Amino acid sequence: MRSPARQQAKGTVPELAPAAGAIQETRDRVKRAYGSAIGRHRRDLVTPALILDLPAARRNIAKMAERLKTMPAKIRPHIKVHKSPELARLQVDAGAIGLSTATIWEAIVMVRSGLDSIFIVNTLAGREKLAALAEIAREAEVMVAVDDPQNTADIAAAARTAGSEVGVLIEVDTGMDRAGLDTPEQAVELARRVAGMEGLELMGVTGYEGHCSLTPERDLRASRQRVAMSTLVDAAERIRAAGLPCPIVSAGGTATWDWTATTHGVTEIQAGSYALMDNFHFPMAGDFEKALTVLATVISRPPDRVIVDAGNKSLGAPALSTMRGHDLKAMRFDEEHGLFIAEPDYPLHVGDVVELVPGYAPGTVNWYDAYHVVEGDRVVDVWPVIPRGPGHGGLIS
Amino acid sequence: MRSPARQQAKGTVPELAPAAGAIQETRDRVKRAYGSAIGRHRRDLVTPALILDLPAARRNIAKMAERLKTMPAKIRPHIKVHKSPELARLQVDAGAIGLSTATIWEAIVMVRSGLDSIFIVNTLAGREKLAALAEIAREAEVMVAVDDPQNTADIAAAARTAGSEVGVLIEVDTGMDRAGLDTPEQAVELARRVAGMEGLELMGVTGYEGHCSLTPERDLRASRQRVAMSTLVDAAERIRAAGLPCPIVSAGGTATWDWTATTHGVTEIQAGSYALMDNFHFPMAGDFEKALTVLATVISRPPDRVIVDAGNKSLGAPALSTMRGHDLKAMRFDEEHGLFIAEPDYPLHVGDVVELVPGYAPGTVNWYDAYHVVEGDRVVDVWPVIPRGPGHGGLIS
Repeated sequence: MRSPARQQAKGTVPELAPAAGAIQETRDRVKRAYGSAIGRHRRDLVTPALILDLPAARRNIAKMAERLKTMPAKIRPHIKVHKSPELARLQVDAGAIGLSTATIWEAIVMVRSGLDSIFIVNTLAGREKLAALAEIAREAEVMVAVDDPQNTADIAAAARTAGSEVGVLIEVDTGMDRAGLDTPEQAVELARRVAGMEGLELMGVTGYEGHCSLTPERDLRASRQRVAMSTLVDAAERIRAAGLPCPIVSAGGTATWDWTATTHGVTEIQAGSYALMDNFHFPMAGDFEKALTVLATVISRPPDRVIVDAGNKSLGAPALSTMRGHDLKAMRFDEEHGLFIAEPDYPLHVGDVVELVPGYAPGTVNWYDAYHVVEGDRVVDVWPVIPRGPGHGGLIS
Repeated sequence: MRSPARQQAKGTVPELAPAAGAIQETRDRVKRAYGSAIGRHRRDLVTPALILDLPAARRNIAKMAERLKTMPAKIRPHIKVHKSPELARLQVDAGAIGLSTATIWEAIVMVRSGLDSIFIVNTLAGREKLAALAEIAREAEVMVAVDDPQNTADIAAAARTAGSEVGVLIEVDTGMDRAGLDTPEQAVELARRVAGMEGLELMGVTGYEGHCSLTPERDLRASRQRVAMSTLVDAAERIRAAGLPCPIVSAGGTATWDWTATTHGVTEIQAGSYALMDNFHFPMAGDFEKALTVLATVISRPPDRVIVDAGNKSLGAPALSTMRGHDLKAMRFDEEHGLFIAEPDYPLHVGDVVELVPGYAPGTVNWYDAYHVVEGDRVVDVWPVIPRGPGHGGLIS
C-alpha cells in the first residue's frame, strides 16, 4: 500500500473510471458552459446556482487546521461533502494528511487530480469496483473499509491481479447501526485474516460515530461520542495486543470532531462538513461559517407566499433550508419550487434574487455541475463538481 | 407562437442553452462511458445503476394512449419524470400532442432533439431564462405558465426582441397552494393583458391538481379533483365570456389523470409518471407497471440488516423504496447506504445484487447520467438523462 510506484503504473482501470484526461475535459466543459459567469456580480447569475464563498471556505479550512495543531489527531477530510479537487487541494495544503471518500469514483477523481493517500470510508463490493480499487492502488496510497471475510478476500485477489497493495481498515459499528463489526473480538478475527492476505496491508480500524450527528443535544451527543470511541479504541488495542499492526484509528464527523480529535487513541478524523457548513451541522459546530449557498429567483408571489426556482431537485434536506437575510419560514419544497410564507406586503417580487442556505451540503452539491466561486460579490471562477451522482456523472469521458 | 419558421431560426440562445450538437455530444459521451454495459445481463452492471424496463414502459405508454382514445382530453406528457428524449419520442409516436416540461432547459433539450409543441408548466423568471424562452419559440411551438403581470410583460418584451411569439397559459391555483392566481376574476384580468401584448399568444389556462396526489384515499382524492377542476374550467369559461381566446385547459397528474381527462372542459392532461411509475404513484394508478428500478449491490451484512450501495444520493423518496423480490422492510437511507431489516439467516450476502423500486421516479432519474435500457434480462441500450440537475447538467457542451 505504501509508496506506490507511480511511474510504473500502467494497468488500465475499468472503462467506467475517469482518466486524468477525462477530468481535464470535464473541467474544460464546465468552463465553457458556465465560464460566462466569471466576473459577474453574484446576484446576476442564472438560477438555481451553487455559490461557494471561497474566503469563508478558506477560513473554515484554516480554522480547522489551526485548532488541530494542539490536538493529537490529524485530519483526513471527507470530500463527499464538496466533491471538489480544488477544495481538497486547499485542505491538503492546510495540512490534511490525505482525504476520505465515500465511493471508489470519488477516490479515483482525487488520485487522478494529483491528490494522494485516500481512505474510502465505506465497504465496497462488485467486480468492477474492486478492480478499480486495486488499479488505483498502483497510483497512490489507497485504503478501504472492510467488515466481511469473503469481501476482504475478494479485494486481496483483485490487488494481486493488479499487482498492487490495498490498505484496509477494519470497520467497527460504534453505535450507528450501519456497516461494521459488532464487537472488538470480531475485529481482531478479521484483522488476523487481513494480516495473512497477500495484496492487503492492515492499516487499522475505522468507526464513524455518525449517529451522534443526529443528536443535537450537546451532553447526550458527548456521552454517545465517548461510548462510540471507547468501542473503537478498544478494538484497536486488542488488535495490537494480538501482535498485529494498527497504526490508524479513524473516526470523527463535524458534529463531534473536537471531542474525537482529542480522544486518546484516535489518530485521525474524517470530518468534512466543516469546510462548507450547512444548516444541519451549524447548531453543533457554529464556529465554522456557512460558505455554501444556492442562488434562486422568485418565480411567483401569491399574497401569502414567496415561491423560488429552487426546490428539492436543487437543495439537500430542503426542509432545513433558510433564506439568507429574510426571516421567512419555509412552507414546502416541490421539485422545482421552494415555497416560503410571507405577508402580502413583504418586499419580494417576481424576478427578485435570493440566496438560500442549504439544509445539507453534500446532498446539495451533488445536484450541480459546478460551483460559482465568489470572493465578496464577484464570481472569480467556476469549479466542477466531480464526480457527482451515483453514476459518477459530470466526468463521463 | 404557431407555425414557427424553423428554417429561419438563426438567433442565438444564451450560451447556457444546449445546442443540438451538444445534445449529440452528450449522447456520445454517455455511450462511451456506459456502452460496455450493452449486451450484458441486467444483474451484471456496475451499481448503483438506473434500469429502464423498456417493454414495460412501452406498455405503459400504449395503455395510456389506448385509454385516452375514448376520453375528450389529449395528453401532453410531463417529461420532468424521465428527462429522456427517447421516452418523449415514444410518447409522441403514441399520439401525445406535445410535451410538458418543468424548466426552460428541459424544453430546449426536447426542441433540439426534434420534438415540438412544448408547454413549460411553470412560471419562469430571470433575464437569461426569458431570453432562452423567446429564442426557442423561434424554433418550435413553446408555451409557458404565467401568473404575474410584470413577468408577463417581461416575456412579451423578450419575445419581441427575439422576433418570436410565446404562447402563454394563465396559471390558476386549483388548491395546491403553489403558484397561480387565486380567483377566476384575476385570471380574466391577466388574460386581458396578455391578449393585448405583442409577442404573446393567449393559449388558455393551466392548473395542476398536484395536492390530490398527496391524497391516497380515493374518494377524497376524487372530490378534491372535482373542486380543483371546477375552478380551472370556470376560469376558462370566464375568459371566453370576456371575448378572449382560451383553446387550452391543461391539468392532470398520474394520480387523477382519468378523472381529469374526462372532466368537461379540460382539453389536455400533463400526466407523466405513468410512463415509469414508482412506489408513490402506484397505489393510485396501479394499472401501470413499475418500469424503473435501481440496481444495487449488498456491501455489508450485519446480523440483523442488509446494506446496499444505493442511498439517498441514488434514490428519490428513498423511504418509499422497496427491494424487488424481497419482503424486507427499509430501515434507513444514508447518502451511499440503503439499509433493510433482515434476519441473520436471510439469504443475501455481501456482493449479491438486488433491484430497488424507487419511491419517486423524477427524483431518482435526476441523480443519474444514463438509463440502462433492458429488454428481458439484457441491456439493449444506454440512454442519456438530459438535462439533469438544477444546473441542467449532463448536457454541458
